[in-house]
Amino acid sequence: MLIREATKSDFEKIWPIFHEIASAGETYAYPRDVTKKDGEKLWMEKPRKTFVAEGEEGILGTYYIKTNHAGPGSHVCNCGYMVPPTSRGKGVATAMCEHSQQVARELGYEAMQFNFVASTNEGAVRLWQKLGFEIVGRLPKAFKHPLKGNVDAFVMYKWLKT
Amino acid sequence: MLIREATKSDFEKIWPIFHEIASAGETYAYPRDVTKKDGEKLWMEKPRKTFVAEGEEGILGTYYIKTNHAGPGSHVCNCGYMVPPTSRGKGVATAMCEHSQQVARELGYEAMQFNFVASTNEGAVRLWQKLGFEIVGRLPKAFKHPLKGNVDAFVMYKWLKT
Repeated sequence: MLIREATKSDFEKIWPIFHEIASAGETYAYPRDVTKKDGEKLWMEKPRKTFVAEGEEGILGTYYIKTNHAGPGSHVCNCGYMVPPTSRGKGVATAMCEHSQQVARELGYEAMQFNFVASTNEGAVRLWQKLGFEIVGRLPKAFKHPLKGNVDAFVMYKWLKT
Repeated sequence: MLIREATKSDFEKIWPIFHEIASAGETYAYPRDVTKKDGEKLWMEKPRKTFVAEGEEGILGTYYIKTNHAGPGSHVCNCGYMVPPTSRGKGVATAMCEHSQQVARELGYEAMQFNFVASTNEGAVRLWQKLGFEIVGRLPKAFKHPLKGNVDAFVMYKWLKT
């Protein structure tokens, strides 16, 4: 698996992944009816950098990194990761999360924060915990899950600077 | 004190307040060298609505309300309040926060979240607590205070729907 920075043309292959995950509405706080154009803006243009994980089969996953807050908060970054169902169970999310922490350090960030992790996304929560992230906040009923109703969301955080 | 929606022309009087507070870097996660144009975008254009509190002396304070996260998070709003030193101690923040909760309910929001409250901003933290907000998260060393160094930031939250 190679993780490399995404190019503009990669979005054609990122979009089906982004669209499937965003429209499901179970894990990401994007509009469920997000358009391709807005998806490109959200995933490719607004972040500081976007990466893809590539295998022989093609793109296995993607992530972005951006500054979470400006000014006095700008030493903390935020990342989002997407792995399509077809490439789950292969360690893609782990590889991308570890890669992103390295990139974050190279970019000078001191910590990484996930702002809005649906508490029902148990696999992700466990994985981030295994990779050193802590649940530092719980937002009661802040995530409207399409099947489970209003569920709590977590804020997760890891200090990166050694 | 009258609290009313801000008009575009109010920004001339909002800007000195915004600039003083943003450039101090002690409470808001805005770039400390924010330009007037970016300030207008951040305070007046990106939010859903912006309000001013007005007294006989002129503008006593200002706040914005916006949707905190899209899609599955869009029932939670976020507000930011600014009161210049010259109009502190008059209940302006309390009046604006209560007003904003009413506006939030009218706009259909179910909860209000403050994403990044510097823990050193003790007066504000106490006031939000008095007004029903709870500290639901603590972000270690996430706020770089110009005098106090890296301090924790709080996530504060209030469920509004009855």
